[in-house]
Amino acid sequence: MKEELKIFYHIFTTTKDAIEKFMNMLDPVIQNAIDDHERLYYHHIFEEEEQRLSRLVVLIPLIQKFQQEKEEKDFSPTNNEFNRLLQELNLEKFGLHNFVEHLDLALFRFKDEERSTLLNQLREVSYKDYQQVKAMLAEINGRFDTNYVDPHAYHDEEHDHLDRSATSAPTKATTTTNSRGMQPKKGFTVGSLI
Amino acid sequence: MKEELKIFYHIFTTTKDAIEKFMNMLDPVIQNAIDDHERLYYHHIFEEEEQRLSRLVVLIPLIQKFQQEKEEKDFSPTNNEFNRLLQELNLEKFGLHNFVEHLDLALFRFKDEERSTLLNQLREVSYKDYQQVKAMLAEINGRFDTNYVDPHAYHDEEHDHLDRSATSAPTKATTTTNSRGMQPKKGFTVGSLI
Repeated sequence: MKEELKIFYHIFTTTKDAIEKFMNMLDPVIQNAIDDHERLYYHHIFEEEEQRLSRLVVLIPLIQKFQQEKEEKDFSPTNNEFNRLLQELNLEKFGLHNFVEHLDLALFRFKDEERSTLLNQLREVSYKDYQQVKAMLAEINGRFDTNYVDPHAYHDEEHDHLDRSATSAPTKATTTTNSRGMQPKKGFTVGSLI
Repeated sequence: MKEELKIFYHIFTTTKDAIEKFMNMLDPVIQNAIDDHERLYYHHIFEEEEQRLSRLVVLIPLIQKFQQEKEEKDFSPTNNEFNRLLQELNLEKFGLHNFVEHLDLALFRFKDEERSTLLNQLREVSYKDYQQVKAMLAEINGRFDTNYVDPHAYHDEEHDHLDRSATSAPTKATTTTNSRGMQPKKGFTVGSLI
């Protein structure tokens, strides 16, 4: 678990810096928006990333605490603080996923070299980190038998539209399938979030 | 606390239904999107609401559990499950806030009577519920002295752009102020999320 905590620490400190770069890019866009719709749109994305930033400000020290102070026996679902750590990590997996999509949405709009270069750099790292967090958490949730049932497991399976190595943008066929596949079922059952 | 749990239960079951109505409205929009940008845009909002739905599927039974089985002594920060409840409620306050903005963004686009009527109905209830959840949690976090420092307290103060009784849409002046006000500070300090 120590090695995984080191990787989580690296990923979440990296993404915290990335959020700040993205927010700094959006700030003048919001101030100079051409209409109310555009302003609300970027303002909304800005706020969602700000919410994520404020969660990371709490999560990162929690990861550090487990890195520095704890013994292997503390990495157990009987330890409430460890459960909280896993719960937060599971939430921030989605935070990273949503960030990749915020970057993709921005890439549709900001085509100038400076911003598109920055956005592509952030996007490349965030996508890779999202994939790694997803894989690590699948393994950890399985190892600790936490009864965590990822409500989006079927969703992630279909999430190849995030993978730009296949296509430069989501294809109609893929996304249409996702849209149907994602329809919430009646009687939708989800396990505990830890 | 029992009375507050009853209100939370009502608000979060109501918003769960509202998410499903909104997702059903978005589904054909995604399928018939005019281009990749529009498709990703609505697909992204659809996914964020889907993530919120999956959290509510866990939160609502947790509220019910506290409604039905617990005594007043269990409503204490020394009870880990109660802390988890408060933490989830604090998270879903932001979920409601973001939902109001998703509805506002949709209202810019869907002007036909059927969809704008639905969106306005969902928007009116969700805004009222967001305000109530915010007020109740401020009071509860204070009562239990949970050391919860809302990372967005300054933000909420400025959040009158959500209040349509003042203006029909965010005004440029207000939003510009928000954008500046929301800039993350260096040395940003945030208390525990419980």
